[in-house]
Amino acid sequence: MDKESLLAAISEDLERIEAALSAVQASQVPFINEVSHYILFAGGKRLRPLLTVLCARLCGYEDPRIYELSVLFEYLHAATLLHDDVVDGAEFRRGRRAAHNLWGNQATILVGDYLYARALRIAVEKGNFEVLKVVTETTLLMSEGEVLQLLNVDNTGLTEEEYEEVIFRKTAALIAAACECGGIMAGLGLEDRKRLHRFGKHLGLAFQITDDLLDYLGVSQETGKDLGTDFKEGKVTLPLLYALNQADDSDRARLLALIRDLDPTPETFREARRIIERCGGFDYARKRAGEEVEKALENLFHFPDNPTRRLLEDLTRFILVRRK
Amino acid sequence: MDKESLLAAISEDLERIEAALSAVQASQVPFINEVSHYILFAGGKRLRPLLTVLCARLCGYEDPRIYELSVLFEYLHAATLLHDDVVDGAEFRRGRRAAHNLWGNQATILVGDYLYARALRIAVEKGNFEVLKVVTETTLLMSEGEVLQLLNVDNTGLTEEEYEEVIFRKTAALIAAACECGGIMAGLGLEDRKRLHRFGKHLGLAFQITDDLLDYLGVSQETGKDLGTDFKEGKVTLPLLYALNQADDSDRARLLALIRDLDPTPETFREARRIIERCGGFDYARKRAGEEVEKALENLFHFPDNPTRRLLEDLTRFILVRRK
Repeated sequence: MDKESLLAAISEDLERIEAALSAVQASQVPFINEVSHYILFAGGKRLRPLLTVLCARLCGYEDPRIYELSVLFEYLHAATLLHDDVVDGAEFRRGRRAAHNLWGNQATILVGDYLYARALRIAVEKGNFEVLKVVTETTLLMSEGEVLQLLNVDNTGLTEEEYEEVIFRKTAALIAAACECGGIMAGLGLEDRKRLHRFGKHLGLAFQITDDLLDYLGVSQETGKDLGTDFKEGKVTLPLLYALNQADDSDRARLLALIRDLDPTPETFREARRIIERCGGFDYARKRAGEEVEKALENLFHFPDNPTRRLLEDLTRFILVRRK
Repeated sequence: MDKESLLAAISEDLERIEAALSAVQASQVPFINEVSHYILFAGGKRLRPLLTVLCARLCGYEDPRIYELSVLFEYLHAATLLHDDVVDGAEFRRGRRAAHNLWGNQATILVGDYLYARALRIAVEKGNFEVLKVVTETTLLMSEGEVLQLLNVDNTGLTEEEYEEVIFRKTAALIAAACECGGIMAGLGLEDRKRLHRFGKHLGLAFQITDDLLDYLGVSQETGKDLGTDFKEGKVTLPLLYALNQADDSDRARLLALIRDLDPTPETFREARRIIERCGGFDYARKRAGEEVEKALENLFHFPDNPTRRLLEDLTRFILVRRK
């Protein structure tokens, strides 16, 4: 399925997700609505709510209340984006100025807290106790993941296992939860719930590895982010990690020098990119993302073949070719 | 009851609360435990968990699991302290360096998120759906309150009503929730639950007004905080607000000049304090705190007279004479 057909197939769901996002009761504090709106309607892909809706439908659950529940994952995601903005000091997010540059760190932290609380209230209002368990467990994992990522800044000795732990916690855990909660609402048994969780986990890992690739190889106008921000911030992601392991002594020394350059220029980044390319870092990351997609599909194939399953398959494969 | 007798009467409960706090399963990330421990065991008064335990007992609930539940309110409180640290840029908290000065803003924000998630997981594990509703509703109110407070910095036209709205949200709402959840665990009906909520709300308002008084009149070695931080940060609290309304033109102009002084010295603060004193700002705040204590007691007196009620009465009255 090409990108246009895929978008057409999910367009109605996306519209209903947008409607549900807009329908969430606003805060009495207009400023909070302003910041929330800025981050929630900044062109997000709505991947997480979409997966909740599709995983529920895959298992026969068609109640329209699923849209109301699904947006909690977008709220949680937006909350982490706001705190990430402050923690990373990013200039741009989705092609627009990062929230902390517009409203300051203080308001950005506090509105992040608000969106987080709002997400949990949606879970209380629309979900059930099992959904709440999954959501609170996931937020714990995520916050630990963010701390781990921070502690690993400039850690050029990061192992692939440690890298995977970080991206599982910071990205894949929430996507896995979004999928599992779709299954919970559909009344699945524990085994099938865990399959949906694994489906989301591997999809999420593929998604984040691709994201990390795009930070090196994307086109800034398409991704809406600065290129090379991970590198500049000292975040060691899979392409760099692999290159550091594979490089000969001279390439390795040069890469380390480029990472530690306290006053990097655009050429610093471009040179690092050339070395990583030469050491096979990008090819390896592409291969790993492909393997995660296959593992995601394996879990999906346990469910009966139907149009929703085929849509989820296409969505999963699309992760590998996305450009933003 | 004097302070020593009061402390003796609650000492066993406080010990069991400390034990429950220590027993919460630690994070797999040692750094998170380090920061959490620093903020959780920094000499907090444990007022919130204590109120949960005592309100439950007031209504006949003696199950020791109440201690495990009660600490969720200390976790929530600690999470807001960490985010406040960053937002306020405070130097000291409880007589020790503020967390963000030790670990940086980034880690402090993220460990705050972790403690928040941990609090909600305790609610999921130990509480019930009603507890969760109250807790998520409260966290929403609190995050809005923090934003309101931020927006009101330097707002010398703040009304008393607006001030009360802010302190309700930032302090009293959580204390009210701690009391109400004690009642929920005891199986109270809605009306009695709401009474405990109001008891906690008025107690919390009295507590915060006293806190705001101590920021002007406390002894730094006792409060463990810098004196005059609210004033320096442009936070308009009740004594100042009242003084601005009551002052003659000359005092008012002078107060405004002192508030807007971009390079304040200790004498700036002392002069402001003298003007506020002269305008009756401190007397008025003391009177208002006393009225809130009376309203708290009114709600408490609907419950049967027993030793726990008398302890709660003493605790409530003690708010007015506390020095830290």
